[in-house]
Amino acid sequence: MKLTQIASLINAKVENLKQDIEIKALKSIESATEQDLTFIKDPKKLTKTKAGAILTPSFIENLDIPQLIVEKPDIAFYKLIEIFYPEERQEGFISERAVIGKNVSIANSAVISEYVVIKDNVKIGKNTVVYPFSYIGENTEIGDNCIIYPSVVIYKDTKIGNNVIIHSGAVIASDGFGYYQEGNQRKKIKHVGKVIIEDDVEIGANTTIDRALVDYTIIKRGTKIDNLVMVGHNCKIGENTVLVSQVGIAGSCNIGNNVILAGQVGVADHITITDNVIVTAKSGVGSSITESGIYGSSINAIEWKKWKRVMSVIYKLPEIIKKFKVE
Amino acid sequence: MKLTQIASLINAKVENLKQDIEIKALKSIESATEQDLTFIKDPKKLTKTKAGAILTPSFIENLDIPQLIVEKPDIAFYKLIEIFYPEERQEGFISERAVIGKNVSIANSAVISEYVVIKDNVKIGKNTVVYPFSYIGENTEIGDNCIIYPSVVIYKDTKIGNNVIIHSGAVIASDGFGYYQEGNQRKKIKHVGKVIIEDDVEIGANTTIDRALVDYTIIKRGTKIDNLVMVGHNCKIGENTVLVSQVGIAGSCNIGNNVILAGQVGVADHITITDNVIVTAKSGVGSSITESGIYGSSINAIEWKKWKRVMSVIYKLPEIIKKFKVE
Amino acid sequence: MKLTQIASLINAKVENLKQDIEIKALKSIESATEQDLTFIKDPKKLTKTKAGAILTPSFIENLDIPQLIVEKPDIAFYKLIEIFYPEERQEGFISERAVIGKNVSIANSAVISEYVVIKDNVKIGKNTVVYPFSYIGENTEIGDNCIIYPSVVIYKDTKIGNNVIIHSGAVIASDGFGYYQEGNQRKKIKHVGKVIIEDDVEIGANTTIDRALVDYTIIKRGTKIDNLVMVGHNCKIGENTVLVSQVGIAGSCNIGNNVILAGQVGVADHITITDNVIVTAKSGVGSSITESGIYGSSINAIEWKKWKRVMSVIYKLPEIIKKFKVE
Repeated sequence: MKLTQIASLINAKVENLKQDIEIKALKSIESATEQDLTFIKDPKKLTKTKAGAILTPSFIENLDIPQLIVEKPDIAFYKLIEIFYPEERQEGFISERAVIGKNVSIANSAVISEYVVIKDNVKIGKNTVVYPFSYIGENTEIGDNCIIYPSVVIYKDTKIGNNVIIHSGAVIASDGFGYYQEGNQRKKIKHVGKVIIEDDVEIGANTTIDRALVDYTIIKRGTKIDNLVMVGHNCKIGENTVLVSQVGIAGSCNIGNNVILAGQVGVADHITITDNVIVTAKSGVGSSITESGIYGSSINAIEWKKWKRVMSVIYKLPEIIKKFKVE
Repeated sequence: MKLTQIASLINAKVENLKQDIEIKALKSIESATEQDLTFIKDPKKLTKTKAGAILTPSFIENLDIPQLIVEKPDIAFYKLIEIFYPEERQEGFISERAVIGKNVSIANSAVISEYVVIKDNVKIGKNTVVYPFSYIGENTEIGDNCIIYPSVVIYKDTKIGNNVIIHSGAVIASDGFGYYQEGNQRKKIKHVGKVIIEDDVEIGANTTIDRALVDYTIIKRGTKIDNLVMVGHNCKIGENTVLVSQVGIAGSCNIGNNVILAGQVGVADHITITDNVIVTAKSGVGSSITESGIYGSSINAIEWKKWKRVMSVIYKLPEIIKKFKVE
Repeated sequence: MKLTQIASLINAKVENLKQDIEIKALKSIESATEQDLTFIKDPKKLTKTKAGAILTPSFIENLDIPQLIVEKPDIAFYKLIEIFYPEERQEGFISERAVIGKNVSIANSAVISEYVVIKDNVKIGKNTVVYPFSYIGENTEIGDNCIIYPSVVIYKDTKIGNNVIIHSGAVIASDGFGYYQEGNQRKKIKHVGKVIIEDDVEIGANTTIDRALVDYTIIKRGTKIDNLVMVGHNCKIGENTVLVSQVGIAGSCNIGNNVILAGQVGVADHITITDNVIVTAKSGVGSSITESGIYGSSINAIEWKKWKRVMSVIYKLPEIIKKFKVE
């Protein structure tokens, strides 16, 4: 695509245009070469580039290549990715190697790949694509324009909205983790509730979302979940919330809208987190958070020799403080 | 089911019974409506309910609906779930789309679904159900009444007892993580041991349990493992122990009976934890625990601005303490 | 195998040999019985053994069984495992139940099992074995002598070198986790980069490695990754590096060569870690590490009653310190 054509697609002003070069690929600033377009968010950070052209928020002096000036070069770049690498739409298709149960309704435009198993009373909406080795349990409903990548397992009774993406290895609606004591033994509490996933949700690879006891676990509209996340039974996760990789949320939590739980955060059971909360990576949430804001308890790694000394002091803090009669 | 019929099943005393209503479903106290039965453990916490009837440990004044008085309403509720939503037993069946190796013994009452692969010299016991896309490696034995959900992978030489449930995506008996240094390179240590899973164990979705070097990794009777847990090679996990989601146990650990490791706990290699220990969520166990009790090292998230100040002080603790000549 | 034969294979000196016994199996020191060979690294730690013979770095007085003296008994033992339990090489084979796309090149000696799906334009090298239920996306290249265990998902455009082992449930090249804000909504950033896995890499069960935005995520030669690890989009992981179970690395990190990240370590995005760094288990890396060495921020679990007191003091540290006018 010609540079001027690109510029007009994203409403960019072009500077340094000597020749309307052909852009072959979109690349990062480190890897771009002369036929590639790249972008920079902060022009002051530009050290060097071999790129053929660059998206930038303001004109960069001493940079000889064509510059496309646009307010948000990163977003312009993301939009160009969509144009440069369009999704190939497959035609609606049901493989003969798929196993389809009774009373299943599949939209004509949906794609059911080889080695998919769909159990009884399932509905699959328009343009939804189900990749190989995915299993869709009884009474499950999947909306329009969803992508179910290979090896996703959806247990029965699940309700999935439109435009939902589920990555490989994710397990939806496995049993909640609950037992009661009977004598010496732990007896399994049967979980007969369901999982509801609303529109525009994305679920990462190998993430697990457990079914509720009798009601439902719900992931609300627009929420994005990364890989290897655990959402416990009966949790309610709000709208436009972000759960970064390896987050774990125990049972019966209420997470608000526009919440961000950074990587490896843990949330204890029955916790409520209000809207617009950010919890920093690796922190533990053991009490409910009722005011919006940023919370955390993570400690940054330092030299181990120094940290070991810190750790040994930490254990003695109560006695030290007491000795000084501070408290 | 009629309310009086329910009451007699769980030996409950009925109060406020004006009419023997028909209960359609079991629901939580938040979601129950007039044809639903719910339960409450602590009647003082009852704010309101639209339920048709309630299980309660003691009569609640000012609550107009029928009350079923029973010592442990939660357990009564769990038992009713089993009655209201009975498991449908499939007849014994081996799908033509399953691939079965040589010298495989499958009980007549077992269900082997489509797209299951069972390798040579495998035994599968009575009433055991294997769902699609599960792989059972050579020389593996699975007992009676087990459920192997879709997409479980069991590597060879595994021994699984009776009444074991393995959820989707779990990987049993993958290689232990071990290498030795040879010059500049890490050489793989071949793991030829096995995994043994005793009776009444449940294993969560996407959990991984590694095979031993030459002996076995063992999960003993009645132990319950949640989703996304890692059990390293050569670990011995005791009876009736609970490993909550995202727990990680490094190689060659000895975990006792009736231990509870809460969510995201990590245990270093070669650690021993005695019986009846609880480790609180997110804690790290770096030394063996030889006395029963509750242990932990988790820190609850607080306002990030405050925590950052705490963190900066923490690093300087040894010098501060020294300055005060406390130690 | 006769004991003297074993000794000659590993260049060991034999002591206490009364009779050239037949060794049936290799076992750990706890489980070995009279027909088994075991090993000990530190003879002082030997309490008792029922083993038939032992590998040891120096002669042990008062131990009546045959002793094979060898400098590194552990490594000798690992090498004997390879000899005692040789890998059975399957002949090259493509199952009729595999689904193979267009323009796919598979070496004659490769094994493609039943229920494998290989999409268009894929290349698979010599002696590579692909187990059932594995999915290999378009334009993917897999080198020689690789093992792809059951239920591995490799999204399109992935490049995998020689001698790579990928364990079950691993997901390679799923989308990077990135969104941009548009009004009230998070819009998905399309990730069209790839994943490159170099020679001699091993990837654990249920580990996930995300594809890059436009360039590539790379795992360099000889690096070993354990189970349930997350490697974010655009990460560069160096050579001979070790990522232990449940490690999480956020997007765009640069991890050096010969780095060891112990279990459950988390690394924030855009972090650089130089060569020869060890980070202790459970630590968080929030700033780049530019000098080789050992780093950490983990705290060892202690009695919960004591720890709770410590925790309550920790929160007040800044005020306490201020009161003492230390800072």
